Amino acid sequence: MSAYTATVTVRLKRGVLDPEAETTKRALERLGFELEALRSTDRFEVDLDAADADAAAERAEEMAERLLANPTIHDYDVDVAERE
Amino acid sequence: MSAYTATVTVRLKRGVLDPEAETTKRALERLGFELEALRSTDRFEVDLDAADADAAAERAEEMAERLLANPTIHDYDVDVAERE
Repeated sequence: MSAYTATVTVRLKRGVLDPEAETTKRALERLGFELEALRSTDRFEVDLDAADADAAAERAEEMAERLLANPTIHDYDVDVAERE
Repeated sequence: MSAYTATVTVRLKRGVLDPEAETTKRALERLGFELEALRSTDRFEVDLDAADADAAAERAEEMAERLLANPTIHDYDVDVAERE
């Protein structure tokens, strides 16, 4: 068993409205910033022990499917890195 | 002026309690997953036009200082990439 950190990035699917990001964008504009667009994503860094990186990625994907993301409105991707 | 995407990652400073992450970790454990720790971070992807990458990074850092992060409890970092 080795120690891994799986990073699960959860973002809204294209076309799903994101009122929070829209509000943040407008607040920045009110502060005088110029920007074209703003998207927000959630990242979960999960420390776990697994036999190898593939097993860690598979477990993290299952976590995303079952809890971290809502497949109806979210896309997600998983990155795995070894942890000291 | 070129088009850039600045990614601002905002995370809680070490030692700041994160009850939401703690709840998510426990929910995963109740589903039968084994994990050592879970941290959550917010990422903002900001599309902006700037003279060069340094100018884009500087603007994104100012956005983080003024709105996206709370310097009392958050650390943040900024990555800039050119956008097609």
